[in-house]
Amino acid sequence: MLIDNLQYANWSETIFRQMRAGGVDAVHATIAYHENFRETVLNIEKWNRDFERFPDLIMQARSAADVDTAKATGRTAIIFGAQNPSPIEDDIGLVEILHTLGLRFMQLSYNNQSLLATGCYEADDPGITRMGRQVIAEMNRVGMVVDMSHSADRSTIEAAEISTRPIAITHANPHVWHPALRNKRDDVIRAVTENGGMFGFSIYPHHLRGGPDCTLQDFCEMIARAAEKFGTAHLGLGTDLCQDQPDSVVEWMRVGRWTKQIDYGEGSANNPGFPPMPDWFKDNRDFGNIAAGLRATGMDEAEVAGIMGGNWYRFYRDSFGPASV
Amino acid sequence: MLIDNLQYANWSETIFRQMRAGGVDAVHATIAYHENFRETVLNIEKWNRDFERFPDLIMQARSAADVDTAKATGRTAIIFGAQNPSPIEDDIGLVEILHTLGLRFMQLSYNNQSLLATGCYEADDPGITRMGRQVIAEMNRVGMVVDMSHSADRSTIEAAEISTRPIAITHANPHVWHPALRNKRDDVIRAVTENGGMFGFSIYPHHLRGGPDCTLQDFCEMIARAAEKFGTAHLGLGTDLCQDQPDSVVEWMRVGRWTKQIDYGEGSANNPGFPPMPDWFKDNRDFGNIAAGLRATGMDEAEVAGIMGGNWYRFYRDSFGPASV
Repeated sequence: MLIDNLQYANWSETIFRQMRAGGVDAVHATIAYHENFRETVLNIEKWNRDFERFPDLIMQARSAADVDTAKATGRTAIIFGAQNPSPIEDDIGLVEILHTLGLRFMQLSYNNQSLLATGCYEADDPGITRMGRQVIAEMNRVGMVVDMSHSADRSTIEAAEISTRPIAITHANPHVWHPALRNKRDDVIRAVTENGGMFGFSIYPHHLRGGPDCTLQDFCEMIARAAEKFGTAHLGLGTDLCQDQPDSVVEWMRVGRWTKQIDYGEGSANNPGFPPMPDWFKDNRDFGNIAAGLRATGMDEAEVAGIMGGNWYRFYRDSFGPASV
Repeated sequence: MLIDNLQYANWSETIFRQMRAGGVDAVHATIAYHENFRETVLNIEKWNRDFERFPDLIMQARSAADVDTAKATGRTAIIFGAQNPSPIEDDIGLVEILHTLGLRFMQLSYNNQSLLATGCYEADDPGITRMGRQVIAEMNRVGMVVDMSHSADRSTIEAAEISTRPIAITHANPHVWHPALRNKRDDVIRAVTENGGMFGFSIYPHHLRGGPDCTLQDFCEMIARAAEKFGTAHLGLGTDLCQDQPDSVVEWMRVGRWTKQIDYGEGSANNPGFPPMPDWFKDNRDFGNIAAGLRATGMDEAEVAGIMGGNWYRFYRDSFGPASV
């Protein structure tokens, strides 16, 4: 089972065919950064048209069983996720509505303070808010995964404790390996994984030691060290592949509608656009490089298979339905 | 199988318990009159809270199989419908979105001209619009029933012809029996039923000969005559029961936001509110009266069972999924 638990591509037939060529069974696809409910629905409508146009290449997945169906029929399963709680606006009832429409991951904050939690770029983190506690309980009830990839440390640790079901950091790397603001300290990763949660490794260059020049060996050794620390079973991929996107999209991701000024996020005035990907991971046909790199670290086949998708598959199976009583 | 294919009650635990007491297996419940998309979603959120609060009394149904589940577990299945295409606004993509959220019936117009079709109170009926043809095709594709209860004659006949799947008039009576503007002429009923569609008989007093004083015998004889004309298999109930609603709701149904003036619809200045129901049908515990009344006309048990719900059940089975290729 090959699963990439975070991509935000400029989706096209070309990319869907690359997914098939790469044998990708499932992708968690971002459908909202700063979009409100109606705008998120418009993005789902766009996906619905792609599902209708390319029924031989992709299908929507709402469950692990749907991923099985996709694999059995030679298609890539698309699982919806939001990088921000903006799609639920201030309305907890929208959690179930969006779950019905297929949303299976939702970040509680994206860099900034949200109604639910604090983002990783804020100076202070007061933790999960009053509404945040209510929304976590509702997400637990319906089976929507709490994702803390862009949240601040205290909020993330509290979310892992408050949530009655395992949560996730879908795309980041260990701070100890590359101290980017978005990478996660060991106590944060431990809080998530020791409660059964998942940590997905990112190949977004700003999250990599050496940026686009990071070697495959360095990336895979980093994963091997994390596996020793946190347990292989809790690790997977969330490449953050933003293929074929114009730079206007990275500006939207960073700035949304929350400021009139430019915010370069992880970039800079000299490097404002999407950074180039490392040469060993350009698109969905390159996952074989990562599997080979993991084997080269000395991991056995079962461990490699788990990180390449088996662990996310198991997590989907346990997370996407209503809470069992 | 006991199915009422149109109610718009002021839903409450009391009414849900009456449904159970009356052995009602499924109800097509109106969730929108003039609501736009976001407002319709708010109404669905309200239903979701009721499904959560009363899991032993009601459940949402999206298919005939769900109605089976409801019956087997002693609950009433609730099927969402809209009396107006206002929930899709001007966006055809919302047809599939609302289908995913459970909408299974949608009227193409409600009394007035809509973007799709003409309503029965307009002076002229130019038939199904350009967008209307596109939306009918999309409803056919996803499995949402075209309902023409409040539409004008030409639009209704055209819809029956354009639609590749059977359509419905969920709640009305034959014009020949009681010439109310909302009741349907024989050629309209024939256009719907001869293409496999369904006609649901209404007990809303303005649709009854004699209004609230209409006798059970007169109502059931009217059904028996329609059965002779159009075939029993195409007939069912759509009582239009609006139990426990304040009169402000009938004003909303009639006036929405489309006029600043009072429009009395089927009522009048002297009789502006909800009319009282006939004494033989006050609430969901009274369906036995209708079954007995139908038997008294000389119908056999199979015919009575079909009209009391079997025919709608079969129609649900054929109509609520994607079109088979």
